[in-house]
Amino acid sequence: MTTLKPANSDFRTRLERNVSVECFRPISPHYLEDPRNLVTGIAGLVAAPRTTQEVSAIVGACAEARVPVVPFGGGTGLVAGQLMTHGPAPVILSLERMTDVRAVHLGEAVLIVEAGATLQSVQDVAEEHGLLFPLSLAAEGTCRIGGNLATNAGGVNVLRYGNARDLCLGLEAVMPDGRIFNGLTRLRKDNTGFDLRNLLIGSEGALGIITAAALRLFPKPASRSTALFVVRDPAAAIELFALARAGSGEMISAFELIGKTGLEFLSATMPQVRLPFEQHPDWMVLVELGLPGNLDGEDALTELFEQGLDAELVSDGLIAQSDSQRADFWNLREHIPEANRLVGAIANHDVSLPLGNLPGFIAAAEAGIMELGRFRINCFGHLGDGNLHFNVFPAAGEERESGLHRKAEIERLVHDLVKEHEGSFSAEHGIGRAKISELKRYGDPVKLSAMAAIKATLDPAGIMNPGAVLGDA
Amino acid sequence: MTTLKPANSDFRTRLERNVSVECFRPISPHYLEDPRNLVTGIAGLVAAPRTTQEVSAIVGACAEARVPVVPFGGGTGLVAGQLMTHGPAPVILSLERMTDVRAVHLGEAVLIVEAGATLQSVQDVAEEHGLLFPLSLAAEGTCRIGGNLATNAGGVNVLRYGNARDLCLGLEAVMPDGRIFNGLTRLRKDNTGFDLRNLLIGSEGALGIITAAALRLFPKPASRSTALFVVRDPAAAIELFALARAGSGEMISAFELIGKTGLEFLSATMPQVRLPFEQHPDWMVLVELGLPGNLDGEDALTELFEQGLDAELVSDGLIAQSDSQRADFWNLREHIPEANRLVGAIANHDVSLPLGNLPGFIAAAEAGIMELGRFRINCFGHLGDGNLHFNVFPAAGEERESGLHRKAEIERLVHDLVKEHEGSFSAEHGIGRAKISELKRYGDPVKLSAMAAIKATLDPAGIMNPGAVLGDA
Repeated sequence: MTTLKPANSDFRTRLERNVSVECFRPISPHYLEDPRNLVTGIAGLVAAPRTTQEVSAIVGACAEARVPVVPFGGGTGLVAGQLMTHGPAPVILSLERMTDVRAVHLGEAVLIVEAGATLQSVQDVAEEHGLLFPLSLAAEGTCRIGGNLATNAGGVNVLRYGNARDLCLGLEAVMPDGRIFNGLTRLRKDNTGFDLRNLLIGSEGALGIITAAALRLFPKPASRSTALFVVRDPAAAIELFALARAGSGEMISAFELIGKTGLEFLSATMPQVRLPFEQHPDWMVLVELGLPGNLDGEDALTELFEQGLDAELVSDGLIAQSDSQRADFWNLREHIPEANRLVGAIANHDVSLPLGNLPGFIAAAEAGIMELGRFRINCFGHLGDGNLHFNVFPAAGEERESGLHRKAEIERLVHDLVKEHEGSFSAEHGIGRAKISELKRYGDPVKLSAMAAIKATLDPAGIMNPGAVLGDA
Repeated sequence: MTTLKPANSDFRTRLERNVSVECFRPISPHYLEDPRNLVTGIAGLVAAPRTTQEVSAIVGACAEARVPVVPFGGGTGLVAGQLMTHGPAPVILSLERMTDVRAVHLGEAVLIVEAGATLQSVQDVAEEHGLLFPLSLAAEGTCRIGGNLATNAGGVNVLRYGNARDLCLGLEAVMPDGRIFNGLTRLRKDNTGFDLRNLLIGSEGALGIITAAALRLFPKPASRSTALFVVRDPAAAIELFALARAGSGEMISAFELIGKTGLEFLSATMPQVRLPFEQHPDWMVLVELGLPGNLDGEDALTELFEQGLDAELVSDGLIAQSDSQRADFWNLREHIPEANRLVGAIANHDVSLPLGNLPGFIAAAEAGIMELGRFRINCFGHLGDGNLHFNVFPAAGEERESGLHRKAEIERLVHDLVKEHEGSFSAEHGIGRAKISELKRYGDPVKLSAMAAIKATLDPAGIMNPGAVLGDA
């Protein structure tokens, strides 16, 4: 980073020759805040271009002058990919003014939107046209679709519809030299050269700035059927998932794992959340089918329950008999993160495992943590995707602060076990600046050197989101 | 290519130090033949390693000595990606001995296979375990899965299950410097750096050699329901497809367009193929639903037919009442390419269009061809994917040979119209060596320069499949 120059007033004057003065915004804390308060961004020149041509002009000027550019979407990323923590003052390039829906191709079920549209607004446009844009996550009201693509966001519908990557047919982006990549196709089949689209998706702003995307929409399931099943253990949950796949195929919309600790936290902190079983089961799963036409999923869920009983995977269960009961089931699942916050975790992990190794990982990680000391573990997550939130809390009655000095040790133990079980230490949050040491420790060395080579050739001046993904040069 | 050296006997002697002598095979015409007989490969040293370590040793030695490497799978590619046509004698690196199934993860529905396994053998392993590997194409008995991934193969099930890219969770590959990329994960969610997997998929051997893959398997649909509907025109077919999506969502396995010329060719050349309607309709679609559990798709197809009638999209239709009738419908569709061969095309095109632009493209291309002269057009294909085979034949009674001098002119007209309608000139066959001039003409210049930069940095000696995708250096 030694050769980079600050975005000072001279540079702003130079930019103003090519870019409308409305682009420039006052710096505000919003652009520098990390949602987890682990770091703070350094101040810079905030530019919010209105068009792709303006993005191109700004990035081109930055490349020439070797001024760093930090792409900024909704600011909701959890790994500090959206803020520089040191180095010369960057251009903070916010997509907030590029929110146009450029086109709705209804017969194709394709939407073309600019990168600054919030995820919620994209969902709403789809909904207005009777279709579904299935990407859905906690920050959806604030996060922007360009950021979702830059980080290949996951969320609750990945099992059925895939990650953000799978929902994107084409991209428009500004490359680190300021040139515009016009790859905004709406094609399902196109084999014309290396896959630049997927290289940009998930590159966290280190290889270019996504300015618009062609997104896939889906038919809305006509009805949903939802159940809670008490399962013997995580291994039984996985066997039940295989049975559900065999019976209901691609109609499974959710298969979530919920552990006893999560229910205890709910009882303790949010007694208003209705819990369906009198005693907290050790493990249960929430299963949802989304069905087209006038199909009815209750039969399928009943059959799954009986198969589970016969195979001694399941011991109890409830199938929602009304929308309000269905809402209760989801309410329970969706309040677990809030209960966690109220209790106060020492360490959170966003990990994924091959399904077959998931029970072994949970057992090994629980045993490992117990050896470290008296902690409580809340393990839950998107079982169908192999994505677990494995969160570690102080023992009952103890303060979070007293355990915080063990955080690094706990994370190391959990991530080492993830690696041993062939999993990923970052399922959906990415690398940003917070997980660079993990990437260096756990990443494949050949992949890491290919990444460095690609970064160096596409961004020789190192201006694009310096420090993100690859660390300091 | 000027600096590359031939794989001569000295080089072979050098390789034998690190690689078992069983690796070396006699050269045979098989390694040099193009299925379309448009070009012939130059001879080289055929090496068929048994292990990834041997692939690594061979490629490493090639990199050091600057000897070209041509990865060779089943040899079925249609764009000459698998053979060098000029330059120093290459190592023809055949994956034919790397055919192991390394693991079947049944509960995860994941298969780990080596790159040399034929597509058919991969389908068979899935089938033996009661699951489906949905990639399916004409060459499946011969082509190898490594080649399918290197070219991001398409085929008949893309509408429901995606291209080869979408069926792959992880890769092992040997990079151009001989190092092994260990990316053979079975994870559905993993955001840990740039997407090297998707960069290798579709790179046609120009960035590395895929040696093994983790593949996604799917539940087999428990039943299939199939119909032929006579539609007004391609626009009506697309409207009907939107209705089918709304009613049957992800359960649509096929939505194929069939034109009158195809039926005429069938009548003329293969009278044994049963045609269901007395008069050849101008356009019809073959619709298939694949259903889980004990769902019955006939109701859904009947409803679709009635909706189509009401909207004046559909004028006649048949829903298969037995497996043999279903087989008749598919038999008709699947014999069209053979009928084309018997008639003899002047020019074939593998194009894709955004669905909304597809009717306009067909009309414009038909009009354009008619202006060029007296030709017949057989337009058919995977409508649901926007993938058309738009094939041009001599007028009835005229010889193919008399029209062959118009081939380049016809291709230019068709591909210019594809571009104008925002489509792709290569939907599923790739670039190889046959479509380099098209890529240069129609490709996005920013993408092309990013491709060249990535090639130069990952393969600085230019040994990996020289001439493929990017043309001669």
